[in-house]
Amino acid sequence: MASGTHRSSAWSRLRDHLHTTQLLGGIHSTLYFDQNTAMPAAAGSWRGEQLALLAQQLHERQSSAAYADLLAEAQAELPAEAPPERHHNLRLLQRELRRQSSLDAALVGQLAQAQAEGYGRWQQAKAQADFQLFAPALERLIQLRLEQARQLQPVECQADGAPRSPWEILAQPFEPEISKAQLAQLLLPLGESLPPLLERARSLPPGSTAAWDLGEAQQGQLCDQLLHDWGYDPQRCGKARSPHPFSCTLGPDDFRITTRVVAGQPFSAFLATAHEWGHSLYEQGLPRSGEHWFPWPLGEATSMAVHESQSLFYENRLARSHALAERWYPRFHQALGRDVWGSGQAFWRDLNPIRAGLTRVEADEVSYGLHVLLRYRLELALLEQGMPVAELPEAWNRGMQELLGLRPTNDAEGCLQDVHWSEGLFGYFPSYALGHLISAQLSASLERELGPIEVLLERGEDAQLGQWLRQRVYPLGRSVDAGGLVQRVSGQPLSSAPFLDYLEAKLERLAAG
Amino acid sequence: MASGTHRSSAWSRLRDHLHTTQLLGGIHSTLYFDQNTAMPAAAGSWRGEQLALLAQQLHERQSSAAYADLLAEAQAELPAEAPPERHHNLRLLQRELRRQSSLDAALVGQLAQAQAEGYGRWQQAKAQADFQLFAPALERLIQLRLEQARQLQPVECQADGAPRSPWEILAQPFEPEISKAQLAQLLLPLGESLPPLLERARSLPPGSTAAWDLGEAQQGQLCDQLLHDWGYDPQRCGKARSPHPFSCTLGPDDFRITTRVVAGQPFSAFLATAHEWGHSLYEQGLPRSGEHWFPWPLGEATSMAVHESQSLFYENRLARSHALAERWYPRFHQALGRDVWGSGQAFWRDLNPIRAGLTRVEADEVSYGLHVLLRYRLELALLEQGMPVAELPEAWNRGMQELLGLRPTNDAEGCLQDVHWSEGLFGYFPSYALGHLISAQLSASLERELGPIEVLLERGEDAQLGQWLRQRVYPLGRSVDAGGLVQRVSGQPLSSAPFLDYLEAKLERLAAG
Repeated sequence: MASGTHRSSAWSRLRDHLHTTQLLGGIHSTLYFDQNTAMPAAAGSWRGEQLALLAQQLHERQSSAAYADLLAEAQAELPAEAPPERHHNLRLLQRELRRQSSLDAALVGQLAQAQAEGYGRWQQAKAQADFQLFAPALERLIQLRLEQARQLQPVECQADGAPRSPWEILAQPFEPEISKAQLAQLLLPLGESLPPLLERARSLPPGSTAAWDLGEAQQGQLCDQLLHDWGYDPQRCGKARSPHPFSCTLGPDDFRITTRVVAGQPFSAFLATAHEWGHSLYEQGLPRSGEHWFPWPLGEATSMAVHESQSLFYENRLARSHALAERWYPRFHQALGRDVWGSGQAFWRDLNPIRAGLTRVEADEVSYGLHVLLRYRLELALLEQGMPVAELPEAWNRGMQELLGLRPTNDAEGCLQDVHWSEGLFGYFPSYALGHLISAQLSASLERELGPIEVLLERGEDAQLGQWLRQRVYPLGRSVDAGGLVQRVSGQPLSSAPFLDYLEAKLERLAAG
Repeated sequence: MASGTHRSSAWSRLRDHLHTTQLLGGIHSTLYFDQNTAMPAAAGSWRGEQLALLAQQLHERQSSAAYADLLAEAQAELPAEAPPERHHNLRLLQRELRRQSSLDAALVGQLAQAQAEGYGRWQQAKAQADFQLFAPALERLIQLRLEQARQLQPVECQADGAPRSPWEILAQPFEPEISKAQLAQLLLPLGESLPPLLERARSLPPGSTAAWDLGEAQQGQLCDQLLHDWGYDPQRCGKARSPHPFSCTLGPDDFRITTRVVAGQPFSAFLATAHEWGHSLYEQGLPRSGEHWFPWPLGEATSMAVHESQSLFYENRLARSHALAERWYPRFHQALGRDVWGSGQAFWRDLNPIRAGLTRVEADEVSYGLHVLLRYRLELALLEQGMPVAELPEAWNRGMQELLGLRPTNDAEGCLQDVHWSEGLFGYFPSYALGHLISAQLSASLERELGPIEVLLERGEDAQLGQWLRQRVYPLGRSVDAGGLVQRVSGQPLSSAPFLDYLEAKLERLAAG
């Protein structure tokens, strides 16, 4: 500039702007964490107003004319020969700006409020197993989300410019570039292959036959030991209990996970801890430190499915492995005060029951995909095929019967079981199933390079596995989408084959001696 | 208005503005609560940035020209015959605005910096028991706070228009209308009467002579039972552990308290729970619900001393009472697994050790006032009598010797023990002592109306006591200041006599049988 006064570069002013946005986003996450771990129930509507206020502030920061100008200025200032990451960061920011700008501010506030309201209603409805208490809130959420999809239509289209359906539009934030066509290709084989596998599993030998359970304190200690074994750092991490386990990043050095203790399900807290820790490790390994990445978008998680693949790796490939079962068998034996298994093999079978059940979060690796298929179909019915909300409970029950051969006895174990719809989260569930696929495909690559996971775990080389993920997967951030990440790491396009192969092999081992 | 468009009243726009301010204040409190109960240490600086960001937003909302205009508009709109509470609310808001506006923005920034610097230096200095490390930061804080008092001078004056001294001005936010003259009248009798009482206490019989302690889980259960007995409602309240116990209101239906477990001090968590619960009940009973009060200033706590009087009532008049000691003796006996007391009387003595010590936060009811007196005199010496900062350690040690008969062996247990001065908080300590006085005077009124507290507790009529406070004290909010509250409830001006009478009677009973 000609003037003598110093003016900082648009790039550095943009960085400052994003930094403050991250501060506010972290405040939002803190309120959410508190809401689920410490907040008394009566505070729900006040917290809803607070979350709405922050959502509005965040929306304003991410869609204001001043921000748009700043982004344009940074774009104009950036030389073509600048590092490609800078250009990539700007492209991601511009896409997000177009998305935010197309949303009406009033709608953003209404949605935040409806989400808080929906969550409260859902809690009541689930406690009383009475869908009618939740139905009006769900109807409102569907209306608002469809309105959101309508407003986003012009900026959300496929790579070839073709328009997306409302469901696809709502799914984009979780799974960038996802399409119903691609899902059909990936999920259809599950619908075909999983039911016969589930049928085969009915003849597997049982684990322990004794009824056993563990107290809250013992379960807490086992979870603590698991985290300790896997490098949990109390200086940067926090843990708590919540009705629904989750992992959540509150700041660049603040990673929280939660678990829950379920009476009669003594592995629940343990496996949830492994799962959430997998999520947290991915967050901890993202390229967030240093001037270059933080607070830029390239340093963020790339998709829910990739996130889920990392949690599933720790839950299913590690915590449920045969090798770790041998390691944990004596620890559970000791915590319980008696041996109800007789062998690590029986303990391992107990950790890997494969049996159709009513509850997604307790589902085994074989049934899981079927739970997702049910929800995916119902979301399409509600959002795109005009199914009335009132018909949801019966449609759910029919679908369960068809896919898993079971029928819920009430709505609490039926269509009220998940928290997601209470917050208007549609388009989210398929990422869970894709997570299984990605996890299997990445695991196959890892095994080609390092050897079988079971062998590494037998040798106590858990750290090598973590190291591989920290080097090959976590640092990619948003530089690739889910499909791109799989292609980059495995050299193959995303497919359901490695997952189905893995399940076949697991069932074989469970059937053996 | 002539135009046909609807425009809401300035009053309702002002209410909306204050409502949003309260939402932000509640977010600030949530971050603080999380910081002290759940946040991992490495997240400290990020949290600091978040708190600073919110503080900036709050300051802006409370001092902007737009807000000043809105307040003026509401004032102009309000008819003289409107309810006096509305006029009172506006007066309180205007006074706070004048206070915010009279401060130079540069000074606000310098102070924030000096406070952060002071806190860091104090931590070092205390760890190394070396006052010299802290002295320059304290000097700077004193200069800046004196400058602040100078800037506030025009808006802070006594009811008759007479100017206030710098110390008085700095004390106003904690204790509205406090004056040195009034303090002299209230605190001087303490300086005369407490040392002989402390001397008499040396010949009291001991409680248990056995060394005993309780585990964290047992202490937690005893605290939970205490709260259950006293009507703790988990729908509106939350509890947690933190390094320093506190009570904190996060929203109109969200009241949190914390306690801590200290090795070797098995009553610490129990008494802290009683104390913080007293604070919380006051907050829960403030006239906050309904259109009329919330979010207006009249619905807020009126002063630190009144707040403290309510916590001290639950800690000292209830939890340390003879009647409750008889009730809790078997419970502690059971939690401990053995009886180290032999009688409720001995257990009660254990709950009421009266013994001069070096540390304010561990002081008994008799010595407490002397700790405050020392700090009050030293603040006046530093701020108004020109005592050099370098002389503080020796002045402290001389004062301790004179008032409590003890001499610290180093500055960490001497003038560096409290956090307050490290953040430039002068004028805060007397409220702690006034809390004892107010608690005793209100208790005397309660006993005149309902009969002796000990008798009510013996009959299990704890609820009657709570009811009296809920009806007579809590609903007053900021409609009166501390002196006005005491006058209203007891019919007498605030005085130290009821407190000294109470201590005399207590020592007598401790000396008996």
